[in-house]
Amino acid sequence: MDSIAKPYVIGLDLGGTNSVFGIVDTRGEIKGSTAIKTQAYSDVNDYVQAGVDALQPIIDMVGGIEKIKGMGIGAPNGNYYSGAIENAANLLWKGIVPLAKLFSDKLGIPVALTNDANAAAIGEMTYGVARGMKDFIMITLGTGVGSGIVINGQLVYGSDGFAGELGHVTMDRSGNGRTCGCGKRGCLETYCSATGVARTAREILETTDRPSLLRDIPLKDITSLDVSLAAEKGDAIAKEIYEFTGRMLGEACADFAAFSSPEAFVFFGGLTKAGDLLMKPLQESYNEHVLPMFRGHAKLLVSGLKGSEAAVLGASALGWDAKPNK
Amino acid sequence: MDSIAKPYVIGLDLGGTNSVFGIVDTRGEIKGSTAIKTQAYSDVNDYVQAGVDALQPIIDMVGGIEKIKGMGIGAPNGNYYSGAIENAANLLWKGIVPLAKLFSDKLGIPVALTNDANAAAIGEMTYGVARGMKDFIMITLGTGVGSGIVINGQLVYGSDGFAGELGHVTMDRSGNGRTCGCGKRGCLETYCSATGVARTAREILETTDRPSLLRDIPLKDITSLDVSLAAEKGDAIAKEIYEFTGRMLGEACADFAAFSSPEAFVFFGGLTKAGDLLMKPLQESYNEHVLPMFRGHAKLLVSGLKGSEAAVLGASALGWDAKPNK
Repeated sequence: MDSIAKPYVIGLDLGGTNSVFGIVDTRGEIKGSTAIKTQAYSDVNDYVQAGVDALQPIIDMVGGIEKIKGMGIGAPNGNYYSGAIENAANLLWKGIVPLAKLFSDKLGIPVALTNDANAAAIGEMTYGVARGMKDFIMITLGTGVGSGIVINGQLVYGSDGFAGELGHVTMDRSGNGRTCGCGKRGCLETYCSATGVARTAREILETTDRPSLLRDIPLKDITSLDVSLAAEKGDAIAKEIYEFTGRMLGEACADFAAFSSPEAFVFFGGLTKAGDLLMKPLQESYNEHVLPMFRGHAKLLVSGLKGSEAAVLGASALGWDAKPNK
Repeated sequence: MDSIAKPYVIGLDLGGTNSVFGIVDTRGEIKGSTAIKTQAYSDVNDYVQAGVDALQPIIDMVGGIEKIKGMGIGAPNGNYYSGAIENAANLLWKGIVPLAKLFSDKLGIPVALTNDANAAAIGEMTYGVARGMKDFIMITLGTGVGSGIVINGQLVYGSDGFAGELGHVTMDRSGNGRTCGCGKRGCLETYCSATGVARTAREILETTDRPSLLRDIPLKDITSLDVSLAAEKGDAIAKEIYEFTGRMLGEACADFAAFSSPEAFVFFGGLTKAGDLLMKPLQESYNEHVLPMFRGHAKLLVSGLKGSEAAVLGASALGWDAKPNK
């Protein structure tokens, strides 16, 4: 490891709206960061050029590109094996986009790429609450539900690079579950994401006459944050929504434990800001549903990484082991 | 690898009723085998002595213990990390039984131990249809439903040695699912095992008046084999039972694909003798329920290993890499 000669890595958290770049040292400190608008570039080559241009000042600040070991990218539908974004629904670039190679060609350093939840898992393992753990499952609770699975200290990519889609296990098997963007029905993500919480709120408000602080907000504008604020004020319906969400997530995690018997589950993302509103029913439901022989084994933890930094840190951690791009 | 000087391994398939030992060469050929009754020994030390006594003639036949590299054991509730059988419900020996060490002390060779489904997965990877695969999931359909998960060419043992209990994911989340021996309700194993098939038969026969060849058999004596024989004769209820079983198994496997995106699922055990009766609805249901991005990726295969030999071969394969026992 030439981390003395090359003590930095670049991390890129590529989201549907924003792309945040950071230069990170071996201790996980972000030495500088910059951002561009992902949606502003319909041609991915223009995007890469804009990213490199934005990075240049902070690359110069740390002593030039020769001080940088590699780059890691976390992106929707990122395939670690191919280094490409493959058919991402929420990006302008269609088909297969070899983003790792494009950045590597421009910067002259090795670049690795994976999906955002996997990047978060690597960040958690390198700098967060999963430090030292060899078996854990990262669950990201944002607009959707993502996951990154670590087994024997290695991220699980599966036979095709797309393992770890736990947001799409089926929680409602009746065939009448909520429709999901993936084309299926009843997926975990349709209930336990930020949008799932808002959907639950709308369902309850529409189908009952019960009073709620949430009735002050236009139905279509209700967010998971509104629900947690109302719950904190004691609103019964809002509390019930988080109870429902946490319990379903606990039931799902109980099944995941039967798969890999992890040391911990690490929850990350907007929904975790609800704290005990979510985590208490989650823990209770997990204990009820997990195979008795696993009861009490796995810890249910909330990520300690700052939301804005975690994604960049996670992506950057991938840069330390990036291999030359073909 | 000293497989030239030590060209054999011992495999032990330890079941609730019988214990089958075999001596196996590097090509997976069983050079000799022997068996003892598991239930005949209430003291595990007597069991080990009886096993070693039974093995002695075939050990002598291959040239003595110095020709044997190691031993592998597949046993219910076997923990690979500790080399012990831990709290097996269907064995006479209670608590934690350090079986690997007991055999190692008697034989003077390293002994590794894991559960029966994991042993089957190793057998399949070493000698069966999963040769060359790095990511696959073995599902054993016997009295219960067991599983062995291989990721990156390694068996998944999890944080405590007990990963891969896919027979206990919850298929009926209503809270009114079938009771399972594990203490939960609605587990996959209560529907998709040999006993699950018989349970489904009894449920349908008891709650309807529909005619069926199965009505010639006393209700409590119906087995999964009776059901498949009746189905082959065109019995509508029997066909329906396998349709139900296969479809539920397909739905479960679709969720497992979201976890590790395997190259294949390999099905093994008594229930697979039903052939297309099981595999056709399984494949159809899998295609319907799997995340669209995974559709068509994983192969659904039936083990090609002979039932009687597979368990011993699988256990023996573990013997090649057995480490000295502490």
